[in-house]
Amino acid sequence: MIAVLCGGVGAARLLAGMQQVIDPREIVAIVNTGDDTELHGLHISPDLDTITYTLSGAVNPATGWGLGGDSFRAMEALDRFGAITWFRLGDADLATHLFRTGRLRQGASLSEVTVEISRGFGLNIKMLPMSDDPVRTRLSLRDGGEVAFQEYFVKLRHSVAVSKVRFEGAELASPAPGVLEALETADAVIVAPSNPVVSIGPILSVPGISEALEARRESVVAVSPIVAGAALKGPADRLLVELGEEASAVGVGRFLRAVVGTLVVDEADASLAGAVRDLGLECVVTPSVMSTPEVAAGLARVVLGSASGHRLDPADSHEL
Amino acid sequence: MIAVLCGGVGAARLLAGMQQVIDPREIVAIVNTGDDTELHGLHISPDLDTITYTLSGAVNPATGWGLGGDSFRAMEALDRFGAITWFRLGDADLATHLFRTGRLRQGASLSEVTVEISRGFGLNIKMLPMSDDPVRTRLSLRDGGEVAFQEYFVKLRHSVAVSKVRFEGAELASPAPGVLEALETADAVIVAPSNPVVSIGPILSVPGISEALEARRESVVAVSPIVAGAALKGPADRLLVELGEEASAVGVGRFLRAVVGTLVVDEADASLAGAVRDLGLECVVTPSVMSTPEVAAGLARVVLGSASGHRLDPADSHEL
Repeated sequence: MIAVLCGGVGAARLLAGMQQVIDPREIVAIVNTGDDTELHGLHISPDLDTITYTLSGAVNPATGWGLGGDSFRAMEALDRFGAITWFRLGDADLATHLFRTGRLRQGASLSEVTVEISRGFGLNIKMLPMSDDPVRTRLSLRDGGEVAFQEYFVKLRHSVAVSKVRFEGAELASPAPGVLEALETADAVIVAPSNPVVSIGPILSVPGISEALEARRESVVAVSPIVAGAALKGPADRLLVELGEEASAVGVGRFLRAVVGTLVVDEADASLAGAVRDLGLECVVTPSVMSTPEVAAGLARVVLGSASGHRLDPADSHEL
Repeated sequence: MIAVLCGGVGAARLLAGMQQVIDPREIVAIVNTGDDTELHGLHISPDLDTITYTLSGAVNPATGWGLGGDSFRAMEALDRFGAITWFRLGDADLATHLFRTGRLRQGASLSEVTVEISRGFGLNIKMLPMSDDPVRTRLSLRDGGEVAFQEYFVKLRHSVAVSKVRFEGAELASPAPGVLEALETADAVIVAPSNPVVSIGPILSVPGISEALEARRESVVAVSPIVAGAALKGPADRLLVELGEEASAVGVGRFLRAVVGTLVVDEADASLAGAVRDLGLECVVTPSVMSTPEVAAGLARVVLGSASGHRLDPADSHEL
């Protein structure tokens, strides 16, 4: 069994690659819920949904989130009330949030609903939210004020400088049922190429999770989401710099080294391998920009090989 | 100012007629919320919405509820989770429920959200829910068991026999702000041609409302929703019989006579006028089947005229 710490789009693509090379039933995805938000009374879990939609093939390929071919009549109709419409919820997408919210109000846990939704989409991997308790990522802006994650990420399009990130509620949260067990018994733990600050950070903030990773650090493999000094998607590069770290695979390694034993970096960062090793990490160099399912599968093989101590040649990745 | 006790479709049509003959700002609609339900975590107020959609011209004319030209993608998508889909919520219609639910979760009262929604639809009448507190109509079935109103009305299509109706929460509910004031100060109170048992009944169950009507019974005018022994829509006729009353304008009169001074009956029931008067009610006979806006306006004029003691000739109704 392989446990994977996951944010949104990058994690979804790596999981899709892993599904090609190992039995999906061997995969346990432990997913960030620090981005979760309540909007129009609905409980929205963007990272859980992005993974679900991607793995089921239902995702909107143009955006990497939401459902392909969706319409936005509810959003258009919300305009007449002056309601928030910058967070776009498609009509078919709404069904996921309606079902989740209805079940939560009936008393189901987020873990339980997550299983039900992933079954609804026919997934074979096991998906766990990092916690059933509310943990909310909040960002202090350099120009003053504090905003919730979605306000930073969607409304402000992450084009504002951040001075501090905190995970509200984390100290009172517990890992969701099965999370610690998965982290303790997995053959390997993978940290997906997700934003280390605001996607992996919230997961690590839940008491017990960092400790479980530290205890098995040698078999924890992270994939750098920073390639050639830039984030493939989103604000990971700027956030690292704003929080005093460098925007590079080395910065990612330094950020994660307490809980990670191996860092996988892109070929474009081959020259950084020495600096990563100087941090006390193993470093594996391989194509990591998952622009096609083949690259994703190749990356998955390398990551899994690294984790098991049997590093595979990425050139073999099409054969398995 | 005219106060109107309202259920759904019949009330919406009478209000639309009233809007043609008096200034809409003079109308206060006091609306049944005993049908309200929570579904998929959303607070749904069917009677409030039917009135709003009808008066704004946005209603689906084929059904009398929902929005014209709406789509049902969210409902279709809910199917994959095995969620309840017998209560059909259109995609644009969902916006109303999302906005209401979001505002309620923020701490707004149902009265406050009702004003906001009616403004969003450009209405000029004042709409008040009967209560900001939850009152839920529940029906005991003759074959056993008790169901919520929407389960009876929509899921079972009201084709089951009922032995008892109760309004859960009524004894603890208060009239919404402005309701008693409207009932005490209105020039007239109209009871719309809505189901007396499950549309008007819940309003009368809220402590203080029946008392306010009894105190001014002589200027309270009801329109019979039963014409020639049958309900124009819905199960009013069967419910009256199942609860021991007769399915006729006379039955309606007997059901409401404690709070009503005048009953308006359709021309088809002219022969019942004597029996209605024998109950101690005034009886006015006029066309009441609101198949066109002209009939609705004519009925509105007669009702308003009856209430003010200056009964107008329905033949004049097109002239005003």
